[in-house]
Amino acid sequence: MSIFNLFRKPQTAPMARERLQVLLAHERASQGSDLVAILREEILAVIAKHVQVDADKVRVKVDRDEHVSILEIDVEIPMDAKALAA
Amino acid sequence: MSIFNLFRKPQTAPMARERLQVLLAHERASQGSDLVAILREEILAVIAKHVQVDADKVRVKVDRDEHVSILEIDVEIPMDAKALAA
Repeated sequence: MSIFNLFRKPQTAPMARERLQVLLAHERASQGSDLVAILREEILAVIAKHVQVDADKVRVKVDRDEHVSILEIDVEIPMDAKALAA
Repeated sequence: MSIFNLFRKPQTAPMARERLQVLLAHERASQGSDLVAILREEILAVIAKHVQVDADKVRVKVDRDEHVSILEIDVEIPMDAKALAA
């Protein structure tokens, strides 16, 4: 399964918006610090610095089990969103 | 398939090191700016700010097709790596 299939939707209609997805997984050996919680806000800030997005178009989900913490960020980018100063 | 399976390895031996993986996908409608190239360095900088890693333990891969750009970052974190000031 190519990794593109993980993110690509079958194209039926012209794309109405672009999409940015982030998956961050921390495979922890011990109960040490959970990087996902630490990195979450800063990664959101890096994205917001470069893409004009509406807060209600940003979906953030955190999953955790004994050894793995996973952060999922899904951002819908309206077609007319200007890329901010790079 | 639970998302954990995507990241979890079958545990045969006690974990020698922790691991941080980032997948960032930008589904582009047009040939507009490629967020993966823009965000790449800043996400690496956010990680390096919080985790003491060796440059040779950081693997970065970028894949691109007509509509989707994907950034993969894979960081091995030695067990004795101190979490830097959060």
